[in-house]
Amino acid sequence: MREIPPIDYIFTMNFPSRLIEDAVNEISKLPGIGKKTALRLVLHLLKEEQEYTDSLTEAINKLRKNISYCRNCHNIADSEQCSICASGKRDRTILCIVEDTPDVMAIENTGQYTGLYHVLGGVISPIEGIGPSELKIESLISRIPGSEVKEVILALSPTMEGDTTAFYISKKLKEYNLKISTIARGIPVGGELEYTDEITLGRSILGRTSL
Amino acid sequence: MREIPPIDYIFTMNFPSRLIEDAVNEISKLPGIGKKTALRLVLHLLKEEQEYTDSLTEAINKLRKNISYCRNCHNIADSEQCSICASGKRDRTILCIVEDTPDVMAIENTGQYTGLYHVLGGVISPIEGIGPSELKIESLISRIPGSEVKEVILALSPTMEGDTTAFYISKKLKEYNLKISTIARGIPVGGELEYTDEITLGRSILGRTSL
Repeated sequence: MREIPPIDYIFTMNFPSRLIEDAVNEISKLPGIGKKTALRLVLHLLKEEQEYTDSLTEAINKLRKNISYCRNCHNIADSEQCSICASGKRDRTILCIVEDTPDVMAIENTGQYTGLYHVLGGVISPIEGIGPSELKIESLISRIPGSEVKEVILALSPTMEGDTTAFYISKKLKEYNLKISTIARGIPVGGELEYTDEITLGRSILGRTSL
Repeated sequence: MREIPPIDYIFTMNFPSRLIEDAVNEISKLPGIGKKTALRLVLHLLKEEQEYTDSLTEAINKLRKNISYCRNCHNIADSEQCSICASGKRDRTILCIVEDTPDVMAIENTGQYTGLYHVLGGVISPIEGIGPSELKIESLISRIPGSEVKEVILALSPTMEGDTTAFYISKKLKEYNLKISTIARGIPVGGELEYTDEITLGRSILGRTSL
């Protein structure tokens, strides 16, 4: 009789080369990439020309070493000031407060916003040990006096952490007599009314807009 | 009235930095990784320590520059000879012919095979312009005379290309009086008989094994 190998033995990987093992281990540290995907990427790199690997690693190294952040809004930038802050075409009376860079990109892609941004770098989260001092909130407050800002839009995720951060910032900004708003919570475009959860549906009624 | 932006505008990405754009473009050239995933990886790298990026790119560069192939079986190896060919514990009378390195790893992980391998580096595919001379078939033939090999197992994918390659190799090996076999086609373990396609089921009956 042949012996049936134990299940966990089947899932271990025996690499034919130490170089492959190292590369697979490093690549599989990236979020959403497991060992199998990492191995597929490694074997792909080996089949491609050396030039591709060179330009890939060069782009990653350059990115990590040379990246800088805008001194005004703390968004990722190529120089001291990001292209949005430097632009003469933006409405300097509105400031949109977001958690991180992907949010700026998402809002920019809507084409519906022409004001400036402020990137907090996170949200207040006691569980993860992130308090207001870890975020760019002080720098936000100091931007207001003497600026043209009249309105602040809080574009944070509708989570407990996002709501806490929004509440904290709105309290801090109270003395400056600004119009403070938060982005609308409601039914997503294309969503079905009957399948929307009660909290979202409730908020969409409270936040109804006149036609 | 506000203008509704065109759909394709929504899907373009406006990167806040040239460095990010370059890195996203390079990473999204990898198979199975789109621009959104690439951006997520890039932002992850920016949040991690510089050391991680360094060790990641170093492992990839080392891999691409220093990788070598076994002179006997053409499997990926750290030196001139792979660990399987160099091992004294392998059965040198059996040779398993596979398409590529992942196949060697898959068979090794079963723990059911103790012989040697020969990696072809592909299969014959007229559509993709891959003929027998592009593969390591000549080197396979030259391995046989004077060796201990008595049996050859063709472990190629059950596709038209795999079957063509198996047929070509078995014809070439005819004169050496070897036992030539192909891995069994049949119902996968855990598969349901009634949902198996007719060709597989037919082959599983033709290739039945006595209990």
